[in-house]
Amino acid sequence: MAVYTEVSDDALAAFLAEYDIGAMVAFRGIAEGVENSNFSLRTTTGDFILTLYEKRVDPTELPWFLGLMEHLAAHGLTCPRPVAARDGHALRQLCGRHAAITTFLPGVWPRRVRTEHCGPLGAALATLHRAGEGYAPTRRNALGPHGWQPLLDRARDRADEVQPGLAAELDSALAQILAAWPATLPVGHIHADLFPDNVFFLDGRVSGLIDFYFAATDLLAYDVAICLNAWCFEPDFAFNVTKARLLLSAYQRVRALSDAERAALPVLCQGAAIRFLLTRLYDWLNTPPGALVTRKDPLEYLRRLRFHLAARDEHAYGL
Amino acid sequence: MAVYTEVSDDALAAFLAEYDIGAMVAFRGIAEGVENSNFSLRTTTGDFILTLYEKRVDPTELPWFLGLMEHLAAHGLTCPRPVAARDGHALRQLCGRHAAITTFLPGVWPRRVRTEHCGPLGAALATLHRAGEGYAPTRRNALGPHGWQPLLDRARDRADEVQPGLAAELDSALAQILAAWPATLPVGHIHADLFPDNVFFLDGRVSGLIDFYFAATDLLAYDVAICLNAWCFEPDFAFNVTKARLLLSAYQRVRALSDAERAALPVLCQGAAIRFLLTRLYDWLNTPPGALVTRKDPLEYLRRLRFHLAARDEHAYGL
Repeated sequence: MAVYTEVSDDALAAFLAEYDIGAMVAFRGIAEGVENSNFSLRTTTGDFILTLYEKRVDPTELPWFLGLMEHLAAHGLTCPRPVAARDGHALRQLCGRHAAITTFLPGVWPRRVRTEHCGPLGAALATLHRAGEGYAPTRRNALGPHGWQPLLDRARDRADEVQPGLAAELDSALAQILAAWPATLPVGHIHADLFPDNVFFLDGRVSGLIDFYFAATDLLAYDVAICLNAWCFEPDFAFNVTKARLLLSAYQRVRALSDAERAALPVLCQGAAIRFLLTRLYDWLNTPPGALVTRKDPLEYLRRLRFHLAARDEHAYGL
Repeated sequence: MAVYTEVSDDALAAFLAEYDIGAMVAFRGIAEGVENSNFSLRTTTGDFILTLYEKRVDPTELPWFLGLMEHLAAHGLTCPRPVAARDGHALRQLCGRHAAITTFLPGVWPRRVRTEHCGPLGAALATLHRAGEGYAPTRRNALGPHGWQPLLDRARDRADEVQPGLAAELDSALAQILAAWPATLPVGHIHADLFPDNVFFLDGRVSGLIDFYFAATDLLAYDVAICLNAWCFEPDFAFNVTKARLLLSAYQRVRALSDAERAALPVLCQGAAIRFLLTRLYDWLNTPPGALVTRKDPLEYLRRLRFHLAARDEHAYGL
């Protein structure tokens, strides 16, 4: 369910008339993505994605996101590139929403992560981090460590409905994570949501990264930790150290992790696990059970969190 | 919400290996359509639609639908054409579902029907009716007049929850419609669901008709009546006789309606209105209010039904 706003053909035609990208050939809603309305748009000059930004995106932040994508694309990362209309602006209005056209990327996101995906993913993540270096504006990570305590506070009262003892376990884990959180690691622009459905592959290579609307300025190694959580656990929640080793070594061939970053991997992974656990927990407690959206099970991240809490050092991740 | 089944990249690659349509380039879920899972699929040879048939479609009927689409496409109608794999079969299995690849059609369906759409729509409907003439197998219309009494019986007890007096009004209307239903009009293959979202336009012309999974063998003029309901009422439920006249005259330039068909238009339109009223009523009463699917208001068709019950003869439709 990723089309929240219906775009009339009249409105679309008027919108496209502001661009120099040819005449419309086809226009279809895309089922993937959960935050915005996305459409695949074909014109006589090529393929594009039209995004209408829905409520969850703060419109004052859109220029930052689009500027980052433009910068990353200009500096060697394959990602959607905002397409400017004739007046030079890519961020526009359509059907009462902020809207932008971006370039189309070929490829397919992996429904099941295989070992062979993890090296290319690690290299792409490091490429993103290097490509972002010259982008001066910053964005605070609202879902970074400062946001976790408020998230837990909003869910604590009902957390034990999901699993008895969950509130106490999360209180204890979060206190430990925040106390150990590293203060001085290298900072840059991170994707912050680089799950498999945001990474397209074609012929075994990464053909593009998408969905930068959680991107922020934060610890680069925290982005690595998010990927270790998202890509290296098997369906039975066993940690696949082979996948982790491939991810980390390919990352380091593009951008070397410092000793301090490597040493911090356990707590960064704990933080990444509790971040997704907390947002899923909140959504779980606030989504009616009959609704047709898939509620993602927060307990999948409790299993990951426990693994990371037991990790003695970076060797747990194959380093 | 039109992706019910998630297709893994491994399963898709194995599936595509059975075809001679090139290597995969892109694969995205399509948000439109409510009965099946639809994906847009690009390969090195072109664009296709992959459909996985979900529960509401009877698998024993799939060969009839695909055969009809093949026949129509071969006889001058622009519609999706089933693509056979190397073994000659288009109907296959994928992820535990029946599945088929069909050709991609350019164009955009009209979110708001304008007068200029109605002539091309009428001509396309008549082209469909003529193109279907040589397709020998038949399919009984489960949602035709024989199906309306059972539909009403399942909804009658709770119909007045939607509007007081609705059950009695529908009982009376249905009895009148069934008593007057014509027995001897020309029969052929009808689309039976030719709403605007199933008709693509490009540069003011119809670029294709899609979604034949309600098609059946029934009165051809009943299909015309469905289109009069679906295309010729304004948002305030006023009947737009200009649209109807354009639809009917363009239809008749391709296939002339007989005197008997023209005379039957009021009762055929009444039947079409009550058919969509009854299925919407059933869905309305059986969809939890919190669900994220849009419940279509059955009363929109009560407004249409009353118009048709008041129509004295075919002149009400601009003839």
